[in-house]
Amino acid sequence: MTEPLEIALSRPTALERVPRWDFEADVIVVGFGAAGACAAIEAKRGGARVLLFEGAASSGGTSALSGGEIYLGGSGGTPTQRAAGFDDQTEDLYRYLLMAGGPNADSAKVRLYADNSLKHFEWLIAQGIEYKSSYIAGRCIEPSTDDCLIWSGSEEAWPFVEQARPAPRGHCPRFVGMGGGRYVMNILAKRALEAGVDARFNARVQALVADESRTVHGVAVRVDGELRFARARRGVVLCAGGFIMNRGMVKKHAPFLLRSQYPIGAVDDGSGIRLGMSVGGAAINMSEGFTTIPWYPPDSLIKGIFVNGCGHRFINEDCYHGRVSSYILRQSGDRVWLLQDHATYAEGEMHKLARIEIGATGETWEEVERELGLAEGALVDTVRLYNRDAAHGKDRLLHKAAQWLKPLEEPPFVALDCRIDYCLYSSFTLGGLDTLPTGEVVDEDGGVIAGLFAAGRTTCGLPRWGEGYSSGMSLADATFFGRQAGLRAASTNR
Amino acid sequence: MTEPLEIALSRPTALERVPRWDFEADVIVVGFGAAGACAAIEAKRGGARVLLFEGAASSGGTSALSGGEIYLGGSGGTPTQRAAGFDDQTEDLYRYLLMAGGPNADSAKVRLYADNSLKHFEWLIAQGIEYKSSYIAGRCIEPSTDDCLIWSGSEEAWPFVEQARPAPRGHCPRFVGMGGGRYVMNILAKRALEAGVDARFNARVQALVADESRTVHGVAVRVDGELRFARARRGVVLCAGGFIMNRGMVKKHAPFLLRSQYPIGAVDDGSGIRLGMSVGGAAINMSEGFTTIPWYPPDSLIKGIFVNGCGHRFINEDCYHGRVSSYILRQSGDRVWLLQDHATYAEGEMHKLARIEIGATGETWEEVERELGLAEGALVDTVRLYNRDAAHGKDRLLHKAAQWLKPLEEPPFVALDCRIDYCLYSSFTLGGLDTLPTGEVVDEDGGVIAGLFAAGRTTCGLPRWGEGYSSGMSLADATFFGRQAGLRAASTNR
Repeated sequence: MTEPLEIALSRPTALERVPRWDFEADVIVVGFGAAGACAAIEAKRGGARVLLFEGAASSGGTSALSGGEIYLGGSGGTPTQRAAGFDDQTEDLYRYLLMAGGPNADSAKVRLYADNSLKHFEWLIAQGIEYKSSYIAGRCIEPSTDDCLIWSGSEEAWPFVEQARPAPRGHCPRFVGMGGGRYVMNILAKRALEAGVDARFNARVQALVADESRTVHGVAVRVDGELRFARARRGVVLCAGGFIMNRGMVKKHAPFLLRSQYPIGAVDDGSGIRLGMSVGGAAINMSEGFTTIPWYPPDSLIKGIFVNGCGHRFINEDCYHGRVSSYILRQSGDRVWLLQDHATYAEGEMHKLARIEIGATGETWEEVERELGLAEGALVDTVRLYNRDAAHGKDRLLHKAAQWLKPLEEPPFVALDCRIDYCLYSSFTLGGLDTLPTGEVVDEDGGVIAGLFAAGRTTCGLPRWGEGYSSGMSLADATFFGRQAGLRAASTNR
Repeated sequence: MTEPLEIALSRPTALERVPRWDFEADVIVVGFGAAGACAAIEAKRGGARVLLFEGAASSGGTSALSGGEIYLGGSGGTPTQRAAGFDDQTEDLYRYLLMAGGPNADSAKVRLYADNSLKHFEWLIAQGIEYKSSYIAGRCIEPSTDDCLIWSGSEEAWPFVEQARPAPRGHCPRFVGMGGGRYVMNILAKRALEAGVDARFNARVQALVADESRTVHGVAVRVDGELRFARARRGVVLCAGGFIMNRGMVKKHAPFLLRSQYPIGAVDDGSGIRLGMSVGGAAINMSEGFTTIPWYPPDSLIKGIFVNGCGHRFINEDCYHGRVSSYILRQSGDRVWLLQDHATYAEGEMHKLARIEIGATGETWEEVERELGLAEGALVDTVRLYNRDAAHGKDRLLHKAAQWLKPLEEPPFVALDCRIDYCLYSSFTLGGLDTLPTGEVVDEDGGVIAGLFAAGRTTCGLPRWGEGYSSGMSLADATFFGRQAGLRAASTNR
């Protein structure tokens, strides 16, 4: 008992060692991104006194770096979906999200979200986020306009299209240009502050405070350089992002993501996850991550084909850019090309940003093959087979939909170089604390850790499989399950 | 303080709640497989009073289910290697093991092992394990004889052969037939008991006992149905296997392993890992696992080629069966075939066991292609390109070594069906507690957890990448690092 008090993310501070409470609240929220803002708003609505600690000097987190789109639908469609002619059914949303969650999908979370997605849209609007009732039919990554509804996943592509009736579900806010995440975050943060959430900035949580039965009672937090202790009478909600910027953690848990040159994160140093683990919270699915390279738009590029270092195709190119990129990252070797002919080629809108450059050109595919240094026939055979299938309107190898099939036979031909070790594949992590749909953090055996909640990329939520990720799933997860965590924390009695 | 005492793997029992010590020792070892036996032997040699708890009715664990081969070499070669003409150098062993460890290899453990592998062989012999000085030149999985030295990895295959001079390093004990792991375990267990290790069977450890600073002081253990408390004055060593038999854990951490139909484990319910996590031990690399299907011997089958559901090759077939299988499991879809011609085909020695059956035959590859329902040209193009390269003695696509190249042109042709959803791919986990080379368990930040040690598949050790696994690496890791953990625990003062 005479040891100096050691404060560490990976060890809870014992309740009896806390010298004093510098702050007291019912609910303490850690992190002021989308999950933290929504948790705070709802905890406040649930009658709690809410204290929020944000390590940075302002709100936003990684959510503010996003495009701001949110994956929504079901219940016959959001007003925006219905206006565009899509009567999106809850069961289709459910099946799509379940498949998109991969082999470890959380059916309870998917169920709750699918059933309540429409109401969640209404809630977002009630917070002040505006949406136009407009629809973009072509493929885009983020609209450069203030239009709303986009195709932001693999809904129309094999094999998803066989499981669920497709609908566009990416809802972008009424914000002109890219970067709508900042707009969304400004509104949510303002709303939280107006509701009376006591937010402290430059306040980095250093440890959880727990008793011997591992019930969480508060946090140790460094505010403006001073160590403070904050008591949470009902619960602590961890909303501190993922761990993509902590390269040591990435190496230990998701080493394949080190292949990506462009980690996306504001802080995302894994501190939220490590705090949860310090009291026995289970971190699951830690090897999974999102990765992408923005190889389209324009749409015409989707009519091209990707080949790996063997000259083989490996994915139906009409699925979501992130799914294509996940498949790229699981190829052996770094060499990957996107083949186009004169009719399909166009400079990609984001190719410069992503460092996608021309790797080879030729008047024949033989010439391209030689220029790339591929084995004789390796590329030519692939194109011949694809062209024959495309001419028949049926991709027997990889099931690309007929509308994207066109023989690549109009010279000149081009191979766009998408090599993994040069192009900017972006990435973030999808593993994190295991939580119930209520936001309660559980241990490896499924037991609830009293007083501890989490949401957003600190948890393993709706999106948990790079191959199934769709734009808007993270914000959907962070906002919706942030709300659940805040509500549950506020209603906790102990 | 009046709560009933709850005993759970995922929560340490507070030291002050322990009602009495039913047992006391210096070092407590949990699990009596290879890691536990070696830890106990060395802790005893280090002067400790050693108590060992094994959940089963006898010793052996998953080690006893193995072939008993141990991956050894370096320092100019073991006597067996030298007798066979291989002057295996330490740096080659080091480079091979480092590459085999994959993107998250532990260079400190690899260094220690490579430098001391020869001495470790001497230690194993000193325990009473006998080895003949004989060498099997062809590929085998486990000798059916009592011969010793085998090629048990991808040493001669690309890309390993470019990193390290190859040598056979799988050392099988002098035991006739398969299942040498039982023989090895009987000797190690006998040795531990003779040395005075107090082993208790049917004794399942239920929780760690820790103080508020998370120092481990003992265990709560159910012995013959009664809950007992055992004090470890110096340390607890967790050697309780991996988690392949805990299907819930596999789903949460390594869902791709659910594709394998044949998990290999004695207990391997993750209890050792969960105990370590309960006091903040970091579990790393949890998504990785070993998987294999014994598609060779005989050697001639290596001259065939594997193709996936697109008819594409994806791996140089001359690498270790487990590496081939890891690549198979990362293909999309379940369909995989091994193509052979009349000259190369032979019924595999273990094909019945693995459920590898004939999927199609034909007098031409076109006929085989049709029978398999593949797109026209998908298989034929692949074989044509391979045959041309094989005729020139150079596999430009996937770098299979020249000695295994032969055009597949002698009818009849056969496609052996290796489909993932039917054949018996076996598997075990490679993720686990993060430890120092001393066996000390560390937390997510690298801080040592006082009083806690681990070894074997409860940890993430030398083998941590399915694509690099080689037979004998697990027993090498378990025996060598079991020893380190036992020695370090015995010398701990507190």
